Amino acid sequence: MAETGQSVHIKSAPKDYSEPEPHVLWDSGEFRKWSLWRAAIVEFVATLLFVYIGVGAAIGNGRTHPDGVGMLGVAWSFGATIFVLVYCTAGISGGHINPAVTLGLLLGRKLSVNRAFIYIVAQIVGAICGAGFVKAFQKTRFQVEGGGTNFVAEGFTSGAGLGAEILGTFMLVYVVFSATDAKLKARDSHVPILAPLPIGFAVFVVHLVTIPITGCGINPARSFGSAVIWNHGKAWDDQWIFWIGPFIGASLAAIYHQHVIRVLPDKHFLLPTLSLSTMPKARPQS
Amino acid sequence: MAETGQSVHIKSAPKDYSEPEPHVLWDSGEFRKWSLWRAAIVEFVATLLFVYIGVGAAIGNGRTHPDGVGMLGVAWSFGATIFVLVYCTAGISGGHINPAVTLGLLLGRKLSVNRAFIYIVAQIVGAICGAGFVKAFQKTRFQVEGGGTNFVAEGFTSGAGLGAEILGTFMLVYVVFSATDAKLKARDSHVPILAPLPIGFAVFVVHLVTIPITGCGINPARSFGSAVIWNHGKAWDDQWIFWIGPFIGASLAAIYHQHVIRVLPDKHFLLPTLSLSTMPKARPQS
Amino acid sequence: MAETGQSVHIKSAPKDYSEPEPHVLWDSGEFRKWSLWRAAIVEFVATLLFVYIGVGAAIGNGRTHPDGVGMLGVAWSFGATIFVLVYCTAGISGGHINPAVTLGLLLGRKLSVNRAFIYIVAQIVGAICGAGFVKAFQKTRFQVEGGGTNFVAEGFTSGAGLGAEILGTFMLVYVVFSATDAKLKARDSHVPILAPLPIGFAVFVVHLVTIPITGCGINPARSFGSAVIWNHGKAWDDQWIFWIGPFIGASLAAIYHQHVIRVLPDKHFLLPTLSLSTMPKARPQS
Amino acid sequence: MAETGQSVHIKSAPKDYSEPEPHVLWDSGEFRKWSLWRAAIVEFVATLLFVYIGVGAAIGNGRTHPDGVGMLGVAWSFGATIFVLVYCTAGISGGHINPAVTLGLLLGRKLSVNRAFIYIVAQIVGAICGAGFVKAFQKTRFQVEGGGTNFVAEGFTSGAGLGAEILGTFMLVYVVFSATDAKLKARDSHVPILAPLPIGFAVFVVHLVTIPITGCGINPARSFGSAVIWNHGKAWDDQWIFWIGPFIGASLAAIYHQHVIRVLPDKHFLLPTLSLSTMPKARPQS
Repeated sequence: MAETGQSVHIKSAPKDYSEPEPHVLWDSGEFRKWSLWRAAIVEFVATLLFVYIGVGAAIGNGRTHPDGVGMLGVAWSFGATIFVLVYCTAGISGGHINPAVTLGLLLGRKLSVNRAFIYIVAQIVGAICGAGFVKAFQKTRFQVEGGGTNFVAEGFTSGAGLGAEILGTFMLVYVVFSATDAKLKARDSHVPILAPLPIGFAVFVVHLVTIPITGCGINPARSFGSAVIWNHGKAWDDQWIFWIGPFIGASLAAIYHQHVIRVLPDKHFLLPTLSLSTMPKARPQS
Repeated sequence: MAETGQSVHIKSAPKDYSEPEPHVLWDSGEFRKWSLWRAAIVEFVATLLFVYIGVGAAIGNGRTHPDGVGMLGVAWSFGATIFVLVYCTAGISGGHINPAVTLGLLLGRKLSVNRAFIYIVAQIVGAICGAGFVKAFQKTRFQVEGGGTNFVAEGFTSGAGLGAEILGTFMLVYVVFSATDAKLKARDSHVPILAPLPIGFAVFVVHLVTIPITGCGINPARSFGSAVIWNHGKAWDDQWIFWIGPFIGASLAAIYHQHVIRVLPDKHFLLPTLSLSTMPKARPQS
Repeated sequence: MAETGQSVHIKSAPKDYSEPEPHVLWDSGEFRKWSLWRAAIVEFVATLLFVYIGVGAAIGNGRTHPDGVGMLGVAWSFGATIFVLVYCTAGISGGHINPAVTLGLLLGRKLSVNRAFIYIVAQIVGAICGAGFVKAFQKTRFQVEGGGTNFVAEGFTSGAGLGAEILGTFMLVYVVFSATDAKLKARDSHVPILAPLPIGFAVFVVHLVTIPITGCGINPARSFGSAVIWNHGKAWDDQWIFWIGPFIGASLAAIYHQHVIRVLPDKHFLLPTLSLSTMPKARPQS
Repeated sequence: MAETGQSVHIKSAPKDYSEPEPHVLWDSGEFRKWSLWRAAIVEFVATLLFVYIGVGAAIGNGRTHPDGVGMLGVAWSFGATIFVLVYCTAGISGGHINPAVTLGLLLGRKLSVNRAFIYIVAQIVGAICGAGFVKAFQKTRFQVEGGGTNFVAEGFTSGAGLGAEILGTFMLVYVVFSATDAKLKARDSHVPILAPLPIGFAVFVVHLVTIPITGCGINPARSFGSAVIWNHGKAWDDQWIFWIGPFIGASLAAIYHQHVIRVLPDKHFLLPTLSLSTMPKARPQS
């Protein structure tokens, strides 16, 4: 929490907050720590629950089910579930539940490459299991509704789908960065208190605008997990959009946060600035 | 709040929080305390209001009522009411309003067996009264809509219904444990402030995915109360699912929290570890 | 905030909070204070905005308007508006915006009779103006939708309507008391932070269950204001239900809070316990 | 934060808060500061995202799309997006995202005229870009749904539309003033913590009542941006309503806050009271 002694990169006006050091890129000692594996289990369980609830609601209440909660209910199921799960996992794993969020925070130097890799594997496996539970519980509707997979809707171009995924993920990861910003934590104490809520609401509103275009991915684990279980053509044909789009959007949000919002004359830059710091403290658990 | 002196089970790194002692399993002195009976009254009233609002909205706005608030409104009525009632009762009874939550917290050693028993009785009686008010105020619709009872919907197997109840209650009780976790309270001060909100939203999103399958129980008092007032075949035939499912889900959440999230080398275990501590302090009131 | 010196009614265990003195019943000096008249203006404006938004949404999106936000949107318009307005007015007037809330808090000895009277007058005049703006802006739909007045729906008895109004207002005023409870403020610091939110959500969920029965009053000013502007038979025939019901519900909530939740051996009682304290400090502004 | 020494205008009872000085009207040095241009970029990006999500949801889920999220989903898309974006931008630019909010805060002397001008330009350019993305991604539906522009709906007079925009913007700017009030911050510490949430919910509820009348503007940048991209008759014919209405509503809210809510015997007045203070500190960043 306190700035380390050898840090001299802040020469301007005194501040009431301290910027955390960029995280080391590779921390081989991390693999031997229970905290990493516990975080991986937590990311696995959270992504499983997220996909089970979100995709399950999409299938159980879809267009062929006039008595259901409707598309608005589906948007809520994705957004409100993210709010609840970020609340529960923030203190253990950092509450990513999404490979695009993990990539964005990696580019912002908030965690190590090895931790990011383990998280993304856990998220993907969790998403496949979550979609598997949906199929197991709702066999008939799973077939009728096309497995709740993401693909570009009829009448839209791949470019439109890609653009919508980029902008949507930019919105989400921008909110994640804002919610974990050191300056906000120190000076506007009201802001971090709500942190999980705006993250969940960002997912909700992005679904409201993106469901008609792509079904709304903005989370490669969710798109991949449901594609694996459904395993039909269109879910695989468009799969690249739901990886490239979110990764571009997350990268743009990381650049925006680091190079516009947080820019200072001697501010550290993105990934290329290899930190040789030996402090192996990981941000997500703190 | 402070760790008692004789406690020596934490030998690792210093922590900025203290794990509460596991609660005594049986506290006979508790029966003589106003605080227990007040908590029972509060649980009774809260469960009455919860079932009146949730089941009442389900009946008044069901599938045969196109002008109503729809299934999404019904999901809100259950979820938002839990948020409001947990907010009001957390400081008095701990805000369970659900036998599955009480069982989960008992397995996590957060309250005594006698208190848990009294709570569950109060919840069941409250639920019956709440469903009674629904029938009294909405006589006609109560018949049309089948009393708002829980049963496995046509086209789903009992196994699917049981699985959905297990996963749904796991989600809810996992959130309850996360919201009351000692570590989170100490280190991430923003987390407990929102506590009643994610608990309510967990109930909301679980309804979004589970209403089409079982009408969504995840609360044996709610399922039992409406079954008593409706008192027809299917509500009783499937009743076991709405006790076994939530109790398995709550137990899995307790195990997950105690053996994964909170695990430490010398961490106390679940129920079998009989505490002989003589401290009769009850967690729920604090 | 601090307990006055002569107060000796707490003899039991030391507490980390202090119960506020019951407010004086009549404070003639209050009429000369700007703070009372400012609070009255604030209650007037808030009730005007509440009725304009709630009744306006009900009329603009009613049953004859399939493209509208639907009954769920109407429930949100009443509930979310109360959240917003309680947030804005809590620090100035106490944020009542409802004669039933004012009556409940008067019975709980939280404000003087003269202040309660001025508030209720301000609320009624505000509600009439709010309904007037609805009629002015939506002339055609105002006729089609019956002015957004409250009355017992076809197929329900007056008793059912009265019961629903009693239970609904009990829920609302119970939440108001819980949110302003001295004990909760002191010991569970997370609870009051959310105060305006559960109050608004209580209004929301009570609307979800009560709209099909009475259109949902639980606020005599709202019911009276729309009746004055509509001025047709049924709105006046059933008007008594929307005064008697909310006042009974609010009184029951006050009794529940003072005699169950807050009961202590030497606890002061309701209105009859005339306080002769000369402290003219008014609770609502603090 | 602390009152400056030469300030002697508070002679009454001691207070636990300090009223900030009225901001200087013109601060030519501000143009040379990175903080102003960073705030302008942040307002540009936030307004772009706001219009993209709000107008995009309106077009993608409009009346001709029965499977969509409906009008209630559209109201959520505007309201919840404002909540999220105010949360993210409050610490950088003050989180206006709306020329009417900027005007209201300028009249309340919370920022300089030059900063207000730069903000409004950034908001307008952002809104045009946001509407451009909507057209680029949803070409077909953009034509079908009329570009998501604001205009007075059939059956309503211009006066009704103007009145609805005035009252709606009054509600919004009243909430903004309440959320940033110095007194509330000091004495009711729970109030500012929620600040972005009631602002977002105010936008939500105003949409619920105003969508059927004008499509709901209450934000000249949003109305202008979609009109520029749609560029057809009615969007331009009624454009004046969506500038005059919000500006009148915002001005009334500023007057209400400064002359009723915050009035003190020697309270400074609105714009005409030219402050000659030389303190160039800008409120929005703090």
